[in-house]
Amino acid sequence: MNSMVKGEIITIGNELVSGRTRDINSSYIAGRLTAIGVQVIKITSVGDEYEMVSEAIKKAINRADFIIVTGGLGSTKDDITNEIVAKALNRPLKLNETAMEHIKQKVKEMGIEMNSSLEKMAWMPEGARMLDLKGNACGYSIKDKNVLLYFLPGVPDQMRYLLDKFVIPDILKYTKKLPVIKRRILKLYGINESLIAEALKDIKERKEVSLGFYPVFPEYHIVISAKGEDETKLLSYIDEIEAQIKRRLSNYIFGKDEERMEEVVGRLLTDRSLTLSVAESCTGGLISHRITNVSGSSVYFMGGTVVYSNEAKVRILGVKEETLKSFGAVSAETAKEMAEGVRRCIPSDIGIAVTGIAGPTGGTKEKPVGTVFIGLSAKDKTVTKRYRFFGEREHIKLNSSMMALDWIRRYINGDPFLPGI
Amino acid sequence: MNSMVKGEIITIGNELVSGRTRDINSSYIAGRLTAIGVQVIKITSVGDEYEMVSEAIKKAINRADFIIVTGGLGSTKDDITNEIVAKALNRPLKLNETAMEHIKQKVKEMGIEMNSSLEKMAWMPEGARMLDLKGNACGYSIKDKNVLLYFLPGVPDQMRYLLDKFVIPDILKYTKKLPVIKRRILKLYGINESLIAEALKDIKERKEVSLGFYPVFPEYHIVISAKGEDETKLLSYIDEIEAQIKRRLSNYIFGKDEERMEEVVGRLLTDRSLTLSVAESCTGGLISHRITNVSGSSVYFMGGTVVYSNEAKVRILGVKEETLKSFGAVSAETAKEMAEGVRRCIPSDIGIAVTGIAGPTGGTKEKPVGTVFIGLSAKDKTVTKRYRFFGEREHIKLNSSMMALDWIRRYINGDPFLPGI
Repeated sequence: MNSMVKGEIITIGNELVSGRTRDINSSYIAGRLTAIGVQVIKITSVGDEYEMVSEAIKKAINRADFIIVTGGLGSTKDDITNEIVAKALNRPLKLNETAMEHIKQKVKEMGIEMNSSLEKMAWMPEGARMLDLKGNACGYSIKDKNVLLYFLPGVPDQMRYLLDKFVIPDILKYTKKLPVIKRRILKLYGINESLIAEALKDIKERKEVSLGFYPVFPEYHIVISAKGEDETKLLSYIDEIEAQIKRRLSNYIFGKDEERMEEVVGRLLTDRSLTLSVAESCTGGLISHRITNVSGSSVYFMGGTVVYSNEAKVRILGVKEETLKSFGAVSAETAKEMAEGVRRCIPSDIGIAVTGIAGPTGGTKEKPVGTVFIGLSAKDKTVTKRYRFFGEREHIKLNSSMMALDWIRRYINGDPFLPGI
Repeated sequence: MNSMVKGEIITIGNELVSGRTRDINSSYIAGRLTAIGVQVIKITSVGDEYEMVSEAIKKAINRADFIIVTGGLGSTKDDITNEIVAKALNRPLKLNETAMEHIKQKVKEMGIEMNSSLEKMAWMPEGARMLDLKGNACGYSIKDKNVLLYFLPGVPDQMRYLLDKFVIPDILKYTKKLPVIKRRILKLYGINESLIAEALKDIKERKEVSLGFYPVFPEYHIVISAKGEDETKLLSYIDEIEAQIKRRLSNYIFGKDEERMEEVVGRLLTDRSLTLSVAESCTGGLISHRITNVSGSSVYFMGGTVVYSNEAKVRILGVKEETLKSFGAVSAETAKEMAEGVRRCIPSDIGIAVTGIAGPTGGTKEKPVGTVFIGLSAKDKTVTKRYRFFGEREHIKLNSSMMALDWIRRYINGDPFLPGI
C-alpha cells in the first residue's frame, strides 16, 4: 500500500482560467481515477499558453505515474496542445499517418472538404499512439520516462468516451497493483449539518475506513470510503458503518450511491404498481421534469399540470373559486383541492400538489417568500402541510420539488412526512 | 499594458481531487478576477495535504500578484490550511484575538458551547488580517513579498460573499492600474461548429479584440473580448465586431451576455402583452420549468400540462382518440391537436406543444429515438414541424425544450422557424 499509484490532471483552455466555462472534466476524471485506486494528487487548469502548460506537464512527469491532459486538440488556431507537448517533451511534431487516415475518412463521411486546419490535428508529438480509431474523438497517449500521458479532447462527451473506453482500461493494464477502493454514499434530505455531525461523532471507524459528509443542495451526502486489499472485507466494513449510521439517521436517508430521489420514487411506484399525477404551481413543472428524467417513467407517471394562474387551477383541476378567494392560492385548502383535483383530471393512485411563493416577489407578512404547501391525495386520505424554504427562486423551486418527491416516497413506505410549520 | 496583473487560484480539499465534489469555486473566482482585469494564469486543486498545498502556494508567490486560496479553514480535523500556510510562509501560528472574539460571539448567538475545534479556527499565521468581522464566514488575507494572499472558506456561499464584498474591492485598491476588460457573449442555437468557424474566419479583428466560441449544449456562445485602456473605444470595437457577426449569423443569435432563452422569450411576451400555455409530452415539464425559472413569469405564463399518457392527452387537451390511433402520439397531427387543445384548456395567445421520443427505449424504424414534433397554435395559424435530436434522454429533452422556446421567440419576431426534417 505504500507504493501509491499517483495521477495528475491538467485541463487546458483560456475559457477555463477566465471563468467563462466551468471545468467539468477534471472532477469526472478525478472520480474515475479514484474509483480504480489511483490517488489524484493535483488538478491544474491553465490557459492555451506555452509557459504554463509546459511547466504543468514537466512538473507532473516528475511525481505522477499517470497524467491526463484535456483540451487544445481541436482544429482552431487556439488549439496548441500538440505543439506545446512536442516542445515540452522534446519530441518533434510528426504527421501521424493513422490519425491522418482517420480524419480523412471522417471528413469524407461528413461531406466536408479537407483543409489545413483539419490536417493540423494529425501532427502529433513523436511517439503518440492514437487511442481510438473508430469514433469522432481524437485522443492519444505518450509514454515518457515511465510516465503515461493521455491527451484527450476538452469536449466533455468525447473526453468521457475515450477515458472510460480506452484510458481507464489502459491504466489498469499498466499498473501492477492498485489498492482496492470501495465507497458508499448515503443520501439524506430534510436534515441539517450539525445533526449529521452529532450523529457521526461516535461512529466506530477502522483505519481502513474514512467517513465524511458534504452538502449537495438540498441534500446531504455521507460518504463511507474504504481502502485496502481484500474487497470482501472492505465491503463488510462499509456495511458495518452503514448500519451504525442507519440506526441514527434512517429517518433522513432516502437513497444510496448514484440513485436520485426521482429514481427512488420511480422504483417504489413500479414495485407497488402505483400511478402518479402531479399538480404544480410554484415548482412550475420541475417535479414532472424530474420524474420524467427517469427512463421508463411513462409506466407510472400519468401526467402533470402546471396551474400557474388561478384560472388554470379552477378550469383544469376544479379548485373552487370560493377557496381561492377565502384562503388564497397559497394555502392548505388550495393544496388539498389541487391534489384531489389532479387525481380526477388525470386518474391515478397518488396525486401530489405543490403551491407556494418562489419569490423574489409575492411574499406577505403572513406568507413570506418560501412559504410552500404540499398536498397528497390517495384513495385513503388527503394530507397537507405547510413548509418554509429559503434562498433564491430556483433554490425554493428545487427544495419544494424535493419535498414533494420525499412525500411520495414516505407515503409509499408508510413513514411519517417531515414535520411542517 | 505589458505589466499584466496576475492572479492564481488554489482550491484545497480531498473531496476535490477525489472527484467527490465538483469545484465550483474556482470558475466563479476566475470570472470575477477576469472581469476586473486580473489575468488568471493558473488554477490548482490539491488535497488536504502538506506537500502539495505548500508547493502550490510557494510557486504561486513567485509569479502572481494575487493568490486566492479556498478551503480547509473549518473546525474539523481535515481543515489544516492554517497550519500549512504558517509553515509554507515561515510565519508562526498565532491566536488572532479579533477572530477569537468573533467566534466567541457567534457561538453565543447560536447557543452552542465553545470548544477546542472552534478555537482552532482562530489560530492563524502571523500577520493574518480578518476580512469580515460581522458575518458567519471566516476568511483572512496575508501580505507576503508584495503578494497578497486571500484565504477563504470552501463553502460556496460564504466564499462568494467574502470575495465580492471584501477581496475584489481590496484588489482594486491595491492595484494601481488594471487594464479595462470588456466582453460580450452572443448566444446561438440551431447552428453547428463548422458554420460558425466559417462565418468568423474573415472577421476583421483589432489587436485589442479577441474572438472565440464554444459549445454550451445545446447552444453555442461566441465571445468577443477587448482589453485596453479606454472603455468607450473598447465598447465601440466590440460593437463593430458584433455587427460583422450579426451580418453573417443573425438567424441563429437569440440572446446576449447573461440572458437565457427563457428570459428572451419572457421579455418578448411581456413587451407584446402576449400570454402562453404549454403542452408537453416528451419534455415532461422542462419547458414549463424553464419558463417559470424567470421571476415575473406569472404575468405571461398561464399554465402547462404534461400529458405523458394518451389518456391525459385526450382528457385534458381533447386530442382525438382517432388521431392517436391513426397517426400515433408522436406525430404532426397530435402535436397540432395538443397545441390547439392547450389554448382551449388554458386560454392564451400562444399554445406550444411538444411530442416525441426521448428514449432510450420507444424508438421505431420510422420514428427513431430523438424524433420530436413541435406544434404552435395562435389566433392566426397552427404550425407543426418534425425534428430529430441526438444523445441521452436528458439531452433530447433539453434540445426539444430549447427548440420549443426558440419557436415562440421566432413566432413573435416574425422569423421563420428552423427547418425541420
